[in-house]
Amino acid sequence: MSLEHFISEAISPWMKKEGPDSDIVLSSRIRLARNLEKYNFPDLASKEESEAVIQTLAGACKEKSCGNFGEFEILHLDQLKSLAKRVLVEKHLISPHLAEQSKFGAVMLNHDESVSIMVNEEDHLRIQCLFSGFQLNEALTLAAELDDWIEQKVDYAFDEERGYLTSCPTNVGTGLRASVMMHLPALVLTKQISRIIPAINQLGLVVRGIYGEGTEAQGNVFQISNQITLGKSEEDIVEDLRGVVLQLIQQERTARKTLQDGLKIQLEDRIFRSYGVLANSRIIQSKEAAQCLSDVRLGIDLGIVEGISRSILNELMILTQPGFLQQYANEMLNPDERDIRRATLIRERIKLEEA
Amino acid sequence: MSLEHFISEAISPWMKKEGPDSDIVLSSRIRLARNLEKYNFPDLASKEESEAVIQTLAGACKEKSCGNFGEFEILHLDQLKSLAKRVLVEKHLISPHLAEQSKFGAVMLNHDESVSIMVNEEDHLRIQCLFSGFQLNEALTLAAELDDWIEQKVDYAFDEERGYLTSCPTNVGTGLRASVMMHLPALVLTKQISRIIPAINQLGLVVRGIYGEGTEAQGNVFQISNQITLGKSEEDIVEDLRGVVLQLIQQERTARKTLQDGLKIQLEDRIFRSYGVLANSRIIQSKEAAQCLSDVRLGIDLGIVEGISRSILNELMILTQPGFLQQYANEMLNPDERDIRRATLIRERIKLEEA
Repeated sequence: MSLEHFISEAISPWMKKEGPDSDIVLSSRIRLARNLEKYNFPDLASKEESEAVIQTLAGACKEKSCGNFGEFEILHLDQLKSLAKRVLVEKHLISPHLAEQSKFGAVMLNHDESVSIMVNEEDHLRIQCLFSGFQLNEALTLAAELDDWIEQKVDYAFDEERGYLTSCPTNVGTGLRASVMMHLPALVLTKQISRIIPAINQLGLVVRGIYGEGTEAQGNVFQISNQITLGKSEEDIVEDLRGVVLQLIQQERTARKTLQDGLKIQLEDRIFRSYGVLANSRIIQSKEAAQCLSDVRLGIDLGIVEGISRSILNELMILTQPGFLQQYANEMLNPDERDIRRATLIRERIKLEEA
Repeated sequence: MSLEHFISEAISPWMKKEGPDSDIVLSSRIRLARNLEKYNFPDLASKEESEAVIQTLAGACKEKSCGNFGEFEILHLDQLKSLAKRVLVEKHLISPHLAEQSKFGAVMLNHDESVSIMVNEEDHLRIQCLFSGFQLNEALTLAAELDDWIEQKVDYAFDEERGYLTSCPTNVGTGLRASVMMHLPALVLTKQISRIIPAINQLGLVVRGIYGEGTEAQGNVFQISNQITLGKSEEDIVEDLRGVVLQLIQQERTARKTLQDGLKIQLEDRIFRSYGVLANSRIIQSKEAAQCLSDVRLGIDLGIVEGISRSILNELMILTQPGFLQQYANEMLNPDERDIRRATLIRERIKLEEA
C-alpha cells in the first residue's frame, strides 16, 4: 500500500477539515451513554439479549433517511482481527474496553467517521460525535439530533428523577461526556501545566492523555472532559467545559508569545532539533516521536517551521501507534521492530511534504 | 565574506589533498626542535638576542632558492591581533604557547602552509611539516631536508653525546616529535579505546586531544606521538610510531566492520540523528558539534551517508573553533553567541554540499 493511500485510510475524513482554534484544539467530542429499556445492561445481558440490541439498533440505523447522518456501516467486533480492533481504537472510533472486553460488541460508523455508535460497550449505546478544532456546540447539536432520531425508534432506559440510566453511576443523568483534545506545548515548556491541571480538576473537569483514561499525555496533547453528568443540563455541562477551554487557549497563546519573545533562539533550536530527529532517525520510540511531533507542530503554528502541513501532528500521532504500524507493515511486529518501522514511516511522511 | 571564501582561507591548502588511509588518519606531522648556538635559549634571551634570532632565520629563509619549499612569509606575533593568533593556533600552524606566552615570537609559513617554522617559542626554532593522511615518512623527509638546508646557514646548538640541545629536556637528542591525528570513532563506540590508550602509553607513545597537550579528545580525534626523543634515530622513532598507527588503523577498521555487521540499524540511527542535529540545530556547543561531526564522518567513510564530502569533519572541526567563529562573525563573541554562530556556520556548510 502506498503511504498516501495508507494515510487516507488511517485519517478519518472529519479530521482533515480544519476547525476553529485548531492551532490549539485538535478535536472536540460529545459522547452520550444510553441503554434500551427492555434489555439487561451489557454486563448482565445474555448473548441473545446482546444480539437483539444490535439487531434493534442496526435495524433503526439502516433506514435510508437517518437524518443528516448518511448511511451507517456496522462492524461486529467478534468478526474483526485483533489488529483491526486496535486500529479502530487508535482512530478513536471505539474504546479499548469495546475492543478488548466486550463479548458482543459492535460499532456503527457513518461515512466520514465523525459519528460512531458503540453497541454493547459498558452501555447498550455510546453515541459519539467528533469534530475537528473547537466545535463542542456543533458536536452537541449533532449528537442531540442523532439521539432524538434514535429515540423515535427505541425506548431508552430513563428515570424521571435521575435521567438516563447507565451501567456506571458516573454517567447517570445526561449520560454526556464532552471532551476536547488540546495541544499545550507552551504550557508544558513553561511548566505552568503542573499548576493548571489541579485547578482544572477542582472545577469538576478531568485531564487525561490522548488515549483517554489511564493514559499519559503524549506529545503535550491533553484530553479535557467533564466529570459530572448529573444535576446540570447538557448545555451547561458543555458551556462550563467551553469556558475552561477558552481560558486554556488564552493561557497557551500567552505562553507561546512569552517563549517567542524571551527565548526565541532556544525555542527554534528545540523545534528544529526535533525536526532533525523526525527527518533522520532510524529507530524511534513512540514517546520521543510524540514529543518531537509536538515541537514541530508548535513550530508550524508559530511560523518557525515552514512548508510542512499542520496536520502532521494529528496524523503521525495516530499513524505511529502500534496498530497502524503493524497494519502498514502488514505483519505483526515486536516493539524493537515497531521503533524501526515508526522511524521509517515518519521519514517517508516528511518526504511527502518535501516532494 | 562568503562562506566559500572563508573556508578557503580557513583550510590550509595541504589539508585539501587527500592522503593515504585518510578514512582514519587525518594528518601526519613532524616537528623538529632546534636552537642557535650563539644565543641564549628564548626563556633567557634578551630582546636584542631574540630579534637577532628572527633576523638570522628570516634572512636565511628569504633566499629565493630555499630548496623545494618556496618562499616563506614571516609573521611577527607582536604585530598580530589576538584573534589572528587564535586562528593560527586553530589551524595548527602555531602552538598556544607561541600565541600566548612568547614575547618575541614569530612564525614563517610556506605557500601551502604545510611548513611552519615557529621562532622563539620554547626553542629558537620549531620546524613543523604537515601532511594529509598517513605520510609520516614523507613528512620526515621534508623536515630533514629543511633542517639540513637551514643548518647550512646557521650553527645549531648541538652536543656530540646528547644531540640537539633544547629548552626542555624531554626534547633533547633528535628534537623530533612525530605525530598523527587519527579519527577512531568505532574504537570509542565499542569502548576498546580505554584499553588501547594505556597500552599505547606503555610503548612510550602519548595520546592527546586534537589541540595537543592538555586537551581532551573532541570528536573522537586523537593525536598520537612519540614521547622519547633521545637514544633512538629519527627513522626508528618514526618507524615505531608508524607500527602502532598501522595497528590502530587495523583495529579501527575491524571495529567499524563489527558495528556495521552487528548493529547496523543502531549505527545508522546514531549517524543520521547526528546529521539531523548538525543540519538543524540553532545552538550547539563545540563538544556536541565535534561528536556529531565524528558520527557523520564515520557515516561517510562507511558509505551510510552519501553526497557529503569527507573533508567536512576536518574542515568544520577547525571552522567551529572560537577564533574562526569570531573571524567569520567579524566581531568578538561570548560563548553563548559562539554556540549560535557555530550552529549557523555548520548549517550553511551543509547547505553548500546540498547545493
